Amino acid sequence: MHLINKAGLEKVHNSIKPFIHRTPVLTSQLLNEICEAELFFKCENFQKMGAFKMRGATSAILNLTKEQQKKGVVTHSSGNFAQALSLAAKSFGAKAYIAMPKNAPQVKKEAVLGYDGIITECESNAVAREKAAKEIQQKTGATFVHPSNDDDVIYGQGTAAIELLEDYQDLDYIFTPVGGGGLLAGTILAAINFSEKCKVIAGEPANADDAYRSLISGKIELNETTNTIADGLRTNLGDRNFPIIKEYVERIVLVEEDEIIEAMKLIWERMKIIVEPSSAVAFAALIKHKNNIKGKKIGLILSGGNIDVSNLPF
Amino acid sequence: MHLINKAGLEKVHNSIKPFIHRTPVLTSQLLNEICEAELFFKCENFQKMGAFKMRGATSAILNLTKEQQKKGVVTHSSGNFAQALSLAAKSFGAKAYIAMPKNAPQVKKEAVLGYDGIITECESNAVAREKAAKEIQQKTGATFVHPSNDDDVIYGQGTAAIELLEDYQDLDYIFTPVGGGGLLAGTILAAINFSEKCKVIAGEPANADDAYRSLISGKIELNETTNTIADGLRTNLGDRNFPIIKEYVERIVLVEEDEIIEAMKLIWERMKIIVEPSSAVAFAALIKHKNNIKGKKIGLILSGGNIDVSNLPF
Repeated sequence: MHLINKAGLEKVHNSIKPFIHRTPVLTSQLLNEICEAELFFKCENFQKMGAFKMRGATSAILNLTKEQQKKGVVTHSSGNFAQALSLAAKSFGAKAYIAMPKNAPQVKKEAVLGYDGIITECESNAVAREKAAKEIQQKTGATFVHPSNDDDVIYGQGTAAIELLEDYQDLDYIFTPVGGGGLLAGTILAAINFSEKCKVIAGEPANADDAYRSLISGKIELNETTNTIADGLRTNLGDRNFPIIKEYVERIVLVEEDEIIEAMKLIWERMKIIVEPSSAVAFAALIKHKNNIKGKKIGLILSGGNIDVSNLPF
Repeated sequence: MHLINKAGLEKVHNSIKPFIHRTPVLTSQLLNEICEAELFFKCENFQKMGAFKMRGATSAILNLTKEQQKKGVVTHSSGNFAQALSLAAKSFGAKAYIAMPKNAPQVKKEAVLGYDGIITECESNAVAREKAAKEIQQKTGATFVHPSNDDDVIYGQGTAAIELLEDYQDLDYIFTPVGGGGLLAGTILAAINFSEKCKVIAGEPANADDAYRSLISGKIELNETTNTIADGLRTNLGDRNFPIIKEYVERIVLVEEDEIIEAMKLIWERMKIIVEPSSAVAFAALIKHKNNIKGKKIGLILSGGNIDVSNLPF
C-alpha cells in the first residue's frame, strides 16, 4: 500500500502549480452519443511541452535539495519525459542530461535540445540506456529520475486527475493509457484520495501488453513485442507503481492497432484537437468497454499531443 | 454606412446564444514570441459543426417568421455554410435545401446529409448554383439565405468578435480571413461598436485576391483565379458587406500558398488544435505583417476546423 494521503497529494499539486498549466476539460456531444456516456476529456495535450509528463518531471525536481539541483538531473528516454525533464530543469536553472538512443528520430533530439537538454547518445536497448545514464550520473553527480518508476514522478502525474476530480466531483471512472505505469498509478492515488467512488481503467496496446499480463501473473512482466504506434507505451511497469496498479486498477482493456488509429481519428475530426496515439489508446479502450459503462460519467486523460503531423497513420 | 448599433448587435448575440457555443480563447507563449505580440485565438474550430458559420446561419433563421421557417431555407454552398444552415434549420424543425455542385467531395455531401440537409445537385459554376437555388425557392417557397451577403448572416458572424472583445477589452487588432466577406464585415461591426480602438485586418490568399483588388478599385472585383488551398475563401464579396469593408477595414494582407501551409502547421504543432486552411490565412497574414504590430494585443479568429485529416498539405 502506498503511503501518500490526500494532504500529501495536495502539497505536491500546490508545489508544481506555478510551473504547469491547469489544462482545460473538453466535452463533445457527438462522442457522448457514440459512447452512450458523459465524457470529460482532460487535455494534457495542451500542457507545457505537450504532455502530462511535465507534471511528474517538475514534481521530481522540486523534491531535490538545492545542492542536488545544482548538479542536475539525468534520465533515459527518447520521448516526452526527456523533453519534460529538460524543460522542468531549465525552469530551475538546473542541467538535464538525457541518455538517448542513437536511432531516436531527429525531431525528438531537436525537441530536447530546444529545451537545453544535454544529450548523450547510446545504443537503443534498455541495458545500454541504463548504463549510459549510470555513467553520466557518476561523472556529473546528477540525480537519476526515472520516467515512471519514481514516487515523486508518480505523485506529479496524479495531479491531472486531481484537477479533473476538482472540476467534476462525481466521475464514475477515469480512463488513462498505461505504459511505464506512472500516469496510471498517479491517477489511481488521486482517485482513491479525491473521490468516494471513482474507479480507474487503463487502456493498453495489445502489441505491448506487459501491464495486462502483469495483472494476471501478479508480477512485473516484460513486453514481448513493442510493435505499436503508441510509442509512449512501449515501456514496462516498475516496482514503485506496480503495487498500486495491482491493488487498485479496475481493469486493463487491450486494444488493437486499428482501434487506436480509429479512436485517434475520431478525436481529431470531432474534437478538432491533436492528440498522440498513446492518448487514443485510452479512448479506444473506453469505446471497446462502452457496453459496461453506459450512462456513466467518465473522465479521460488525453496524455499528450506530440506527434509528427507530416507522418500520420491515416 | 451600416445602421446596426451596439444594442442591435447585442440583441442578435443574445438571440443566438442558446444555439451556439461560446468558444474558448487560447493563447500560446511560443507563438507570442514568434510574432513579438500578445495573441488571443478565438477558437471557432470548436464551434458547433466546426466553424463560425453556425452563428450567421442561426441568426438568419431566427429572423424568419414562423410561416417562413415552416417553408424552410435554401442556399448554394458546398462548404461550411451548407452544413451550418442544415444544422441550424434542424434546431428549429425547418428544412434546409442545399444547391450543391455535382463534383463536391462526397465527404461534404455526407456532412450536409448528416444534419438532414436536402441536397439538389447542379453544375459547379456560379450561374448554375444560383439557378438551382432559385428553382428550389420557387418550388418550395423556402427563403433564400446567402452564405455571406446577408445582413442577418453578417451580424451573426460578428458575434465571435463580440465575445472576443468581451473577454479582452483592450485588443488593438483583430485578424480574420476574408472570402465572401461575411465574417470580415461582421467583425468590423463588432469592433466599431464594442471597442474604442480595435482595428480589423484581413488575410486573403494571393491566389484569390478579389477583396484586395476591390479595395483598390473601389468596386466589387471578381476572382480571376481560385487556386488556393483555402477552399472557404474562393468566393467574392457582395453588395451588403463590401461597403462596410471598404469603409472600415484597416488593411488586407495577401498571403501565398506556402505561407498558408506553414502557418497552419505552426498552429497544429504548437497549439495542438486542428484548424482549416482558411483560418491559417488569417494567421499567415499576422506573421507577414508582424513588424507593424509589435507588442500589440491581437485577437485572431480561427474560423473553423473542418478538414480532411487524411489529405493534408504537409
